[in-house]
Amino acid sequence: MVTDSFLNHIDQLRFEINEKLKSFPLDSEPKYIYDPIRYIMMGQGKRLRPIIVNLVGAVYGASKDDLLNAGLAVELLHNFTLVHDDIMDNDHLRHGKATVHTKWDDSTAILAGDGIYAIGQILITKVNTNPLKAVHAFNKATLFVCEGQAYDKEFEHNHEIVLDQYLTMIKKKTGWLIGFCAELGGILGNQPDTVLDELHSYGLNLGIAFQIQDDILEIFSDSKSMGKSLGSDLIAGKQTILTVLARENDAIRWKQKWDETINSDIETALENLRDYFSENGILESAKNMAKKYTEAAQNNLLIIPKEKREQLEQLTEFVWKRKK
Amino acid sequence: MVTDSFLNHIDQLRFEINEKLKSFPLDSEPKYIYDPIRYIMMGQGKRLRPIIVNLVGAVYGASKDDLLNAGLAVELLHNFTLVHDDIMDNDHLRHGKATVHTKWDDSTAILAGDGIYAIGQILITKVNTNPLKAVHAFNKATLFVCEGQAYDKEFEHNHEIVLDQYLTMIKKKTGWLIGFCAELGGILGNQPDTVLDELHSYGLNLGIAFQIQDDILEIFSDSKSMGKSLGSDLIAGKQTILTVLARENDAIRWKQKWDETINSDIETALENLRDYFSENGILESAKNMAKKYTEAAQNNLLIIPKEKREQLEQLTEFVWKRKK
Repeated sequence: MVTDSFLNHIDQLRFEINEKLKSFPLDSEPKYIYDPIRYIMMGQGKRLRPIIVNLVGAVYGASKDDLLNAGLAVELLHNFTLVHDDIMDNDHLRHGKATVHTKWDDSTAILAGDGIYAIGQILITKVNTNPLKAVHAFNKATLFVCEGQAYDKEFEHNHEIVLDQYLTMIKKKTGWLIGFCAELGGILGNQPDTVLDELHSYGLNLGIAFQIQDDILEIFSDSKSMGKSLGSDLIAGKQTILTVLARENDAIRWKQKWDETINSDIETALENLRDYFSENGILESAKNMAKKYTEAAQNNLLIIPKEKREQLEQLTEFVWKRKK
Repeated sequence: MVTDSFLNHIDQLRFEINEKLKSFPLDSEPKYIYDPIRYIMMGQGKRLRPIIVNLVGAVYGASKDDLLNAGLAVELLHNFTLVHDDIMDNDHLRHGKATVHTKWDDSTAILAGDGIYAIGQILITKVNTNPLKAVHAFNKATLFVCEGQAYDKEFEHNHEIVLDQYLTMIKKKTGWLIGFCAELGGILGNQPDTVLDELHSYGLNLGIAFQIQDDILEIFSDSKSMGKSLGSDLIAGKQTILTVLARENDAIRWKQKWDETINSDIETALENLRDYFSENGILESAKNMAKKYTEAAQNNLLIIPKEKREQLEQLTEFVWKRKK
């Protein structure tokens, strides 16, 4: 059960992370790069990744300083990928604010993304416990996120992509980084590789569940709580759990539905697709799949001593039940 | 004096670096990212940066493996910045080949740049001597290159930029990374900070001289040996040593010259500007400035024991005398 005391605890963590981001010492010149970097740092993310680093690290008694630095580093890495992805996908809204390339231009967004990543790198080298291991895994995670985004672009408008390919894509694009965050908490808590591997699997499973949920919310939530326009992934021809499962369910009928729907205005298209996904059991299959990965994540948590596991169990449930 | 035996030695180093780049183990999927990364790795750069790492490292007996890994890492870092800069500056030719965003598109180039940088990061964490120090300096260098590129963009089409601002820009955009390369040779050779600082200054001065030379060659060389279109920086409104010194020399007359020249076809414009720079002593001042920084670099080399200094002295002269 997700308790009020747990929710207060992650609110407090999010507050600390946001404060650290807001007060982060940055040069003021050149404004061309530091104005947008400051803008990114003031954004309203969920801070899920640094929260995971902090919760896992707390289990193993990692130092608070290390956890804050490492948490910030992964949040900056995550933001670097978002800023660049938003250019590639031509998305104009992120967490309810104009994206960097929309507010400024592509060049500014490319450079600000590069800069914020370099700052993240500098931060991760500063941790005191196992810094080299942390840095190495940090960069492997970056490369995997890039590979995931590459699949995402490669699969656009391709009506032959199957579930396995979709899962490979989201494992790399979303899952691996969240896996790394859980592992990082263990690295900073000086845990052996057997524990680190299981922590990584925890985050990977949680991340896959998170992405599947995200795909569902993009169609079934409302744009206000999501802080971005709904359905933009569909319009961009992205593979999502719903389109992939609809294809597995009945490829011909789905393609017909897609062709007759996708050129209507977005509200009508969304309504039509929502009905299709609901009536054909596709929404339910997607939810079941998110549930399956959530349960796998809960199982991975058994590596953590019982009396120290509760916060992460609640986090896992919280991610699964989220509405935005 | 630059001897044939020295030239053979750096040809050999360049060959080793190119072989290592060509045979670099990369996944084949997703092609969206690995095809352009392979294309970048097959490019024909001068490999100046890894050559410096290798020459300095050899002075201090650093391990050959470390030097090759670290050399590759800095070359990848350098290529990452080139790929992104080429998008920002809309340059279509690099080392005689189509730039990545020209051959593919902006999204591919953004992502391939990110990926190649992550690979560079993974490589630099693999060095055996002082890896953490190497990684930290590597990322500080990256951030400085980004800052330099930010100044470069910020200063475009600004007719008030003075010499000091230009120097700040090229120190960050070009100088610091070359400074880092020299320092990195010392880090891998386990040298104390006093030596590292002087090696860094060596590379910084060499890098400034290199960039000033580059600005001169962009106007006074020919496009075939440069592997890119001449004068593109001028058309893009970039600050170069020649335009900045022309402004210091006689701001009003230079602005007149600029306005009456810049809209003619590029060949006529280049011819006119070449004459102006030559006749008003601007070319000579620029050459003197490159010489001054080259001499400062030679002085920094005195930190190296006399009997081990010769190759770097020759490299410094070689950079100063280069025609491309």
